[in-house]
Amino acid sequence: MDKVEFATRRVPSRLRVAWRSLHWLVVGSILFLLPGCGQESALAPSNGSGEGSAVAALMQERGLSEADVSAALKTYTPTGGRDEYLIFASGGHSGQVLVIGVPSMRILKVIGVFTPEPWQGYGYGDESDRLLDEGNRWGKSIRWADTHHPALSETAGDYDGQFLFINDKANARVAVIDLRDFVTRQIVASHLIESDHGATFVTPNTEYVVEGAQYPAPLGGGYMPIENYDESYRGAVIFWKFDRDKGRIVPESSFAIELPPYMQDLTDAGKLASDGWVFLNSFNTERAWGGDLEGNPPMESGASQNDMDYLHVINWRAAEKVAQAGKTEEIAGMRVIRLPTAIEEGLIYFVGEPKSPHGVDVTPDGKYMVVSGKLDTHATIYDFAKIQGLIAQKKFVGADDYGVPILPFEEAIKGQVEVGLGPLHTQYDADGNAYTSLFLESKVVKWSLSEMKVIEKIPVHYNVGHILTPEGDTVSPDGKFLVSMNKWAIDRFNDVGPLLPQNFQLIDTSGDKMQLLYDLPIPIGEPHYAQMIKADKLKPIEVYSPVGTNPLSGEVDPYAVKAGEERIERKPDGVHVYMTAVRSHFTPDVIRVKKGDRIHLHITNVEQAKDATHGFAIGSHNINLSLEPGEHSNVDFVAGESGVFPMYCTEFCSALHLEMAGYFLVEP
Amino acid sequence: MDKVEFATRRVPSRLRVAWRSLHWLVVGSILFLLPGCGQESALAPSNGSGEGSAVAALMQERGLSEADVSAALKTYTPTGGRDEYLIFASGGHSGQVLVIGVPSMRILKVIGVFTPEPWQGYGYGDESDRLLDEGNRWGKSIRWADTHHPALSETAGDYDGQFLFINDKANARVAVIDLRDFVTRQIVASHLIESDHGATFVTPNTEYVVEGAQYPAPLGGGYMPIENYDESYRGAVIFWKFDRDKGRIVPESSFAIELPPYMQDLTDAGKLASDGWVFLNSFNTERAWGGDLEGNPPMESGASQNDMDYLHVINWRAAEKVAQAGKTEEIAGMRVIRLPTAIEEGLIYFVGEPKSPHGVDVTPDGKYMVVSGKLDTHATIYDFAKIQGLIAQKKFVGADDYGVPILPFEEAIKGQVEVGLGPLHTQYDADGNAYTSLFLESKVVKWSLSEMKVIEKIPVHYNVGHILTPEGDTVSPDGKFLVSMNKWAIDRFNDVGPLLPQNFQLIDTSGDKMQLLYDLPIPIGEPHYAQMIKADKLKPIEVYSPVGTNPLSGEVDPYAVKAGEERIERKPDGVHVYMTAVRSHFTPDVIRVKKGDRIHLHITNVEQAKDATHGFAIGSHNINLSLEPGEHSNVDFVAGESGVFPMYCTEFCSALHLEMAGYFLVEP
Repeated sequence: MDKVEFATRRVPSRLRVAWRSLHWLVVGSILFLLPGCGQESALAPSNGSGEGSAVAALMQERGLSEADVSAALKTYTPTGGRDEYLIFASGGHSGQVLVIGVPSMRILKVIGVFTPEPWQGYGYGDESDRLLDEGNRWGKSIRWADTHHPALSETAGDYDGQFLFINDKANARVAVIDLRDFVTRQIVASHLIESDHGATFVTPNTEYVVEGAQYPAPLGGGYMPIENYDESYRGAVIFWKFDRDKGRIVPESSFAIELPPYMQDLTDAGKLASDGWVFLNSFNTERAWGGDLEGNPPMESGASQNDMDYLHVINWRAAEKVAQAGKTEEIAGMRVIRLPTAIEEGLIYFVGEPKSPHGVDVTPDGKYMVVSGKLDTHATIYDFAKIQGLIAQKKFVGADDYGVPILPFEEAIKGQVEVGLGPLHTQYDADGNAYTSLFLESKVVKWSLSEMKVIEKIPVHYNVGHILTPEGDTVSPDGKFLVSMNKWAIDRFNDVGPLLPQNFQLIDTSGDKMQLLYDLPIPIGEPHYAQMIKADKLKPIEVYSPVGTNPLSGEVDPYAVKAGEERIERKPDGVHVYMTAVRSHFTPDVIRVKKGDRIHLHITNVEQAKDATHGFAIGSHNINLSLEPGEHSNVDFVAGESGVFPMYCTEFCSALHLEMAGYFLVEP
Repeated sequence: MDKVEFATRRVPSRLRVAWRSLHWLVVGSILFLLPGCGQESALAPSNGSGEGSAVAALMQERGLSEADVSAALKTYTPTGGRDEYLIFASGGHSGQVLVIGVPSMRILKVIGVFTPEPWQGYGYGDESDRLLDEGNRWGKSIRWADTHHPALSETAGDYDGQFLFINDKANARVAVIDLRDFVTRQIVASHLIESDHGATFVTPNTEYVVEGAQYPAPLGGGYMPIENYDESYRGAVIFWKFDRDKGRIVPESSFAIELPPYMQDLTDAGKLASDGWVFLNSFNTERAWGGDLEGNPPMESGASQNDMDYLHVINWRAAEKVAQAGKTEEIAGMRVIRLPTAIEEGLIYFVGEPKSPHGVDVTPDGKYMVVSGKLDTHATIYDFAKIQGLIAQKKFVGADDYGVPILPFEEAIKGQVEVGLGPLHTQYDADGNAYTSLFLESKVVKWSLSEMKVIEKIPVHYNVGHILTPEGDTVSPDGKFLVSMNKWAIDRFNDVGPLLPQNFQLIDTSGDKMQLLYDLPIPIGEPHYAQMIKADKLKPIEVYSPVGTNPLSGEVDPYAVKAGEERIERKPDGVHVYMTAVRSHFTPDVIRVKKGDRIHLHITNVEQAKDATHGFAIGSHNINLSLEPGEHSNVDFVAGESGVFPMYCTEFCSALHLEMAGYFLVEP
């Protein structure tokens, strides 16, 4: 390759413009301000000649290549600088959500979602305990989750920065996070299904939050012999109705569609051309259920016999009407469109999917759905217009064992692109390109949707699952970057014991060649999917205002306490303590009760300065609150043991923070 | 300042050497390999002239200054690169420990310590539940902590990389983390005290892990009227005996010393010259206890009346002998040297500490103890030899109300250095310099121990608490870096709601001027203190070997399962399930039990490949294990509800990971 041509291809177009405007600076000695200009030069060379390079010395010192220098300067974000994008990543089986800045690749927050988190005072004594209890299952307190797929709320198919949803695969739950304060507001647990995977994904205006089941079980719970798997076990997809004004899912306005007992996998909602439809992958159309000690093949081989599984093509807007018309059956409190009704009403169709399909990703224009097979080498591009044509003509090649009409595979697709080994998930950029993760090859492949051909591959380290691009699953992807969400970071970082971090690799896609920029170890959980949003779409609040706001209700709490009105009142239902927190004291700072008393603490942080956050803990009581400026919390507990229990502020709040303390005294 | 001189001062000596060896490269056009050399140039300019600078373009593009470029190149760690140091930071009230690489400032792991963490399978069904239960208090299940001060195990006053200890201020507990696998092994909870702060700190050969109380309470628990504070409330310092071979604290070999009801604060162990002694700060020698609604001054003003509090000077090696001689009283299972005995035996002395002291830091040679007062402008340097001389001469200026002899302040100190406003904590480098955090000034000051004068200050953003330098609290500090652990990151990062991250700022101290390199947001918890160790001192294991090792015992578990020996056995004590995990299946993958059965799961991950980690979850059961290669776990629970519960691998382990699943079937 000609050197000049390479150099021309190499530099992204925006840089080329920047380059030209800087040409005066870069002729001759480049980096270094001339001696005498009055500025301190952090890169000044030791010979004082003004033309050497401390950059070169640092490169030598730290073993950095030119590519490393470029990557460092594309990611390094100086003190006080802001990131252009925020990633919201599932925290995997940590049960939480991670917020990460791009390009700096710094983790800004671990949001407590399904797992109690004491720094945030989440699940440690106040009403967030009740919120977590909403997610209990079959009477069991569940305090963890296997979060997989976060979904930012959308308006007209574009992220609007208002809410984030995320699922719990292990316990079939969905959480709602309010992006005004990055706090979990709601957990819903339908007892219709036992696990989920195709969740959460939203319809283009967040009308519904979609939750597709994974491992079939009797709908609504209860025991049925597994030998009755074909007859008694089922999948389902739930459409949780979201009320944007209230910021809550409304279970009684939600509905579900019964599905055959395949393992439904990933989901995506149609948009623009395909608005009104959702698409679900599936595997194990073999209906294997394991029993390896009972003479059956192990699950993973039993589930990998068929050449084709079924892409589920579902008309949710028609289903909504069917549900509204009452053609449902209530199971475990959920309105369910039974499968025969769904078939009869034309809500559901199947198309073959080759070789252990995993991932369905609708293109930005909504015209195509890209599906990859884990044991395949192709990405298969389904054509929504063709599918609609086939449905209109009722051109089916038969039906599955449950009567769902099957569309002819060859006539439903635009074509296939041989992308590489073990393709999984696809995201998009603004220029009509698709990016697909290649699990077995440990690469990401860039390919052209219009030309249906591979453009470039980049190695990643190592086993990539999902990938993400900025707004890359919306109607208007942003391009620029790609993050490869890798498993098995066996040699990327210093060893920290047998359980290793995962690895998010940031890749620059703005040039003609993809460039690896940064390896981010994930210190907690195993993120599955993530979304990346333009940071300026988010408008988080800085403090709770007015003072006394209860974040769970969004309103001033009826028990909010004003400065000067602090008091302790013994009432028939227990001892009510009306307390304020302000730098550097609690009022009251001594609470006297008797063993067995029910205590109602009402605490208001009466400050409004940004980050005048206080904690409130009572020793030996599993109680810790985070009281952000203006926040009010209520705590309800029984003084179970007599003793002298220090209570204090757990958030370093001032020079006299250690003195922000008092005593909770429980007389025998 | 002369420019040339500045440039000369600016570049660290090691860089200067590197510079000279690179001189051939840096003359003229510096960074860019000449055209035709056959290497791709990531920094090549677009004009193909070979002498421009994409660095300059990137600087313009991203608004980077020269100092930013220097900082970027000093911290950026390319893919696969290793960090030179590891930070072990308290996770504050998250209850966990964070592991951070330096200079890349990437968080490598959040270690579950006091708070259950499902990704690590910590506290979600297996024997780690019992470990967490060891930390319960007064019959209450405590599942969080306010961790403050981590302490790496030491040999001859130097970190040895074997163990990490950390305290829980809120519930007076200490945890032991094994650095072979970065897993918590033990939690001890003495019921002698109700809270701690001067914990954990180790004696120079990790003979003892020191835990000093914070808020006074009746020793051993129980209620006493707070009006009896002076007579009935006490502080204490516990010396937990550590058995290095067993990797465990031995409570029955531990002892404590009763202290007056001041609020003991930070602790440090003497070393070299002062080996055998420990030093504790204190505040609130006023013995204020609050009561702001009862006519008393609020705690923080009541506790800030005295000009001087007391530095506690304690001879632990003599105390050990006193305890061995049986001159103790058993309180709450702990051997306690009562205060009169401690005074009589010459174990404890006081020296005045000015103006709300906070932090005592022994110099590397053990000759001096540096103390700062939050409301002072000075660092006070106590001279251990002078203190010993005063003790030998019994030269006291009196005794406190409890009879502890007080040494004359002026004669006990080497002197004072006016360091700035709100000095807190001090660390050291290899060149005889001290670094002190200035909370009110939001700066770190570098000053000379020998010359007793300030050298330089650097602003930090914003309110700094602790600071740390590499091995900076040992007998051989390593220099090079300093980390400022800041609170209130009000404007450093993208907003993520009212609860903001803290900010670790990495500072290069290797040059003649300190240079701010990097801002790391802390996404969970509020770290208080941290230690930084040379990474090559750690020798973590990669897998558990031999297969079947139970991490909690460190030995092959009696219930370990070999491939081919999987089975389900109904016994009088319940159903025993002997299971193996291997990519990509569990054997057995179907478990059939009856409602009410007690289930004993024995699961062995029989793989030995690095990071062939599996998870094991049962839906709706609050059970999730992390089974690292070779690991064996036991789970004991009751099948409480009949139903069909999917069980599956929660750690993405292979292309057929989703098929690594089965069913837990509970018949009515």
